[in-house]
Amino acid sequence: MCPPALIPFKPVNPKTRLAALLSQEEREQFARAMLEDVKAAVKDAMLSPVLACSELFDSEDVQVTITDTDLNGTLNAILPQNIGTVMIIMADLPLADAVSIRRVTSTEKDMAIVPGRGGGTNVIYLKEPGKFHVDYYGTSFLKHMKIAEEAGLSVDVIDSFRLHTDIDEPEDLVELLIHGTGKSRTYLEGLGFALSVDKGRVGVMRNR
Amino acid sequence: MCPPALIPFKPVNPKTRLAALLSQEEREQFARAMLEDVKAAVKDAMLSPVLACSELFDSEDVQVTITDTDLNGTLNAILPQNIGTVMIIMADLPLADAVSIRRVTSTEKDMAIVPGRGGGTNVIYLKEPGKFHVDYYGTSFLKHMKIAEEAGLSVDVIDSFRLHTDIDEPEDLVELLIHGTGKSRTYLEGLGFALSVDKGRVGVMRNR
Repeated sequence: MCPPALIPFKPVNPKTRLAALLSQEEREQFARAMLEDVKAAVKDAMLSPVLACSELFDSEDVQVTITDTDLNGTLNAILPQNIGTVMIIMADLPLADAVSIRRVTSTEKDMAIVPGRGGGTNVIYLKEPGKFHVDYYGTSFLKHMKIAEEAGLSVDVIDSFRLHTDIDEPEDLVELLIHGTGKSRTYLEGLGFALSVDKGRVGVMRNR
Repeated sequence: MCPPALIPFKPVNPKTRLAALLSQEEREQFARAMLEDVKAAVKDAMLSPVLACSELFDSEDVQVTITDTDLNGTLNAILPQNIGTVMIIMADLPLADAVSIRRVTSTEKDMAIVPGRGGGTNVIYLKEPGKFHVDYYGTSFLKHMKIAEEAGLSVDVIDSFRLHTDIDEPEDLVELLIHGTGKSRTYLEGLGFALSVDKGRVGVMRNR
């Protein structure tokens, strides 16, 4: 049995910071494409994806439902129920691949963590989930490092730009169009997005 | 003899995208502090820093002078003169450490590359420098991958957020205040910079 990879996911009106570029329906489809990329990567790394959704949606995945406002409470209720290892990985990491995820799961420490851009936490991997609790939002990376220290857990900070790069802002789409290899890149390109270079700065443009 | 790590550096009026937060003198001191962090990291990884400066400045480092507008031409004149391995590493990577740089130098491929944020190239490591030429600016990562392919060189893309995170924009300072351990973080903190959290988004504020 593969260990679970919990993936928090918001199927309705996600990624609002991309609203200037994508309609709500497009953002929902884009978020699903990114989720598919993350699921493919964790499966390739021999983990079993479990969606932690803000509401049920039509998919064949194992799902647990969370209330949109209580990600922390829901995850902290789940963690002690697991006796084996657990990963928590965000759904907006379309550059994730099996190699980067295996760097996380092969840690020799009690846990591994991958910081997100801007102080967030993109991946947590716990060998003894009951000894840890999550505290997402804000500078969650620093909070999680402190929680680990207080719990006496040794921590590996995994140095990966593939797992560090969460897609939140329009400029993040540049990374996906350069380094992506999965469904979310294909989806964006299908909408007409391409790289643009203006005065040496690289951005994205939408051609149709 | 340690192999050279060429570090392009602009001592006068650098990092203009930080001008809203830092005066020209502060930007020059900050750029030097970042350079010191990069130099310390490459030395720890058993490389010998060589500055490629847009003008001579007062330091004890080995220097070669380049004209500000011709980084590519200068580097491409230097590369064939080297018979051993050569690294080219940017000066604005204050999160660089010996571990991440050793991941680059331990490649088994003909060369290794670390993409920067926004399509740039932060590190290039060449086992046969005469077979490659650089083409910085714009989407240089994609250009360098193509140059390598045309030269028949095998390439390792090193997945490191420490070497991926170049400090250009105000929001990049968040990364330095969270993950930095060297002189440039100390310099920023000495100016009164600290993390701020506003509606769940993390930024920086200057207290004085």
